[in-house]
Amino acid sequence: MKIHFDDFIYGSIDGAVTTFAIVAGVMGASLPSAIILILGFANLFADGVAMAAANYQASKARNEFIQMKRKQEEWEIDNLGEQEREEIRNIYREKGFKDELLEDVVRIITSKRKVWIDTMMKEELGLIEDEKDPMHSSVSTFVGFNLVGLIPLIPFMVFMIIGIELNGEAFVYSIAGVCAAFFLVGMIKGIIVKKSIIRSGIYTLIIGSVAAIVAYIVGYGLNSLIH
Amino acid sequence: MKIHFDDFIYGSIDGAVTTFAIVAGVMGASLPSAIILILGFANLFADGVAMAAANYQASKARNEFIQMKRKQEEWEIDNLGEQEREEIRNIYREKGFKDELLEDVVRIITSKRKVWIDTMMKEELGLIEDEKDPMHSSVSTFVGFNLVGLIPLIPFMVFMIIGIELNGEAFVYSIAGVCAAFFLVGMIKGIIVKKSIIRSGIYTLIIGSVAAIVAYIVGYGLNSLIH
Repeated sequence: MKIHFDDFIYGSIDGAVTTFAIVAGVMGASLPSAIILILGFANLFADGVAMAAANYQASKARNEFIQMKRKQEEWEIDNLGEQEREEIRNIYREKGFKDELLEDVVRIITSKRKVWIDTMMKEELGLIEDEKDPMHSSVSTFVGFNLVGLIPLIPFMVFMIIGIELNGEAFVYSIAGVCAAFFLVGMIKGIIVKKSIIRSGIYTLIIGSVAAIVAYIVGYGLNSLIH
Repeated sequence: MKIHFDDFIYGSIDGAVTTFAIVAGVMGASLPSAIILILGFANLFADGVAMAAANYQASKARNEFIQMKRKQEEWEIDNLGEQEREEIRNIYREKGFKDELLEDVVRIITSKRKVWIDTMMKEELGLIEDEKDPMHSSVSTFVGFNLVGLIPLIPFMVFMIIGIELNGEAFVYSIAGVCAAFFLVGMIKGIIVKKSIIRSGIYTLIIGSVAAIVAYIVGYGLNSLIH
């Protein structure tokens, strides 16, 4: 199993924001902490599964799209050989080849079916067979979602375990935890893509916070509309 | 603005499952329909924003990763030219070139810096600069999420507007609506990747339903644990 950093980032940001959105929405609606935990965990597990399933479908769709394009290219090579040969000629002319050397290159490339198709895929269509297994993408998202999405719930769990109902205080810790999580995810991203770590942390913190604030406003606003 | 089908699929499945998860979770906890709508809409808007933000971050991270790799290749060409030239030689030997022709190809490819780097990126690393604008990916997800994610809430809205509280019946319509939505998304996927439309519809319906059932069980199970 390989954890893909982009899918992990996707899952972890979504996990933190949505679980926090539940917490913030329920706080806005002034419901007891038991409801916060019910809905928070329901979101954590269910949305985690939902996202993993959606990721799997989307990753699979992308792979299937590339396979479909490959089949199209195979058909074109079998049925419109001369036209496809001309496309290889144009691709290598573009790279700086000409005259006899260009013809030699076209001859070699088009003499092996696999090389010919690979070249068309990469150079004409800009598609590379993705080596990412949809299952790995999906699990990466799920792990990120649940690991980071658990954070907003921890303070409410702790207060419930020690037997006190201090939702206001738990909410403050929840906010702090979520902010720290956003910053950390941003930092990890910065390390992987070799950009400024602090700036990357702040950037992710801002984006995540905006989404979380929208959640709180919507939850509170809808509540005051109905009551 | 370009709508990307894979991001749309990702958003729409996640939107339908998570909004339905809220509905199912609240039904399991026997709360009034006002709460269902508060939390459903809070999820719809907030999770839509969350997912769009997470998608934007993940897409951007992927693009930045490719840019970082490109910079590495640029550095290697400038500092380890002979080694990189040998890699080009191996890549084209693999394609079937040899002797003098191979040397001519290596000479032409490495004579233009951009062609050289592009070749290393595509052939050695299997990376193609993604033409996908992170903003387009993000909006595609958001549109899918909100369009399809609204479906589970419609029955509860309709019953509330006509002034009757029939959560049980609304829930049945909600289930039917979500199933139809999964099937439709699967069919759209099938059309795009040119696979069996019915099979694709059923497949997405199954995956979505499993996630939705997990949500209901978790919501109901946690509720009975706490009360």
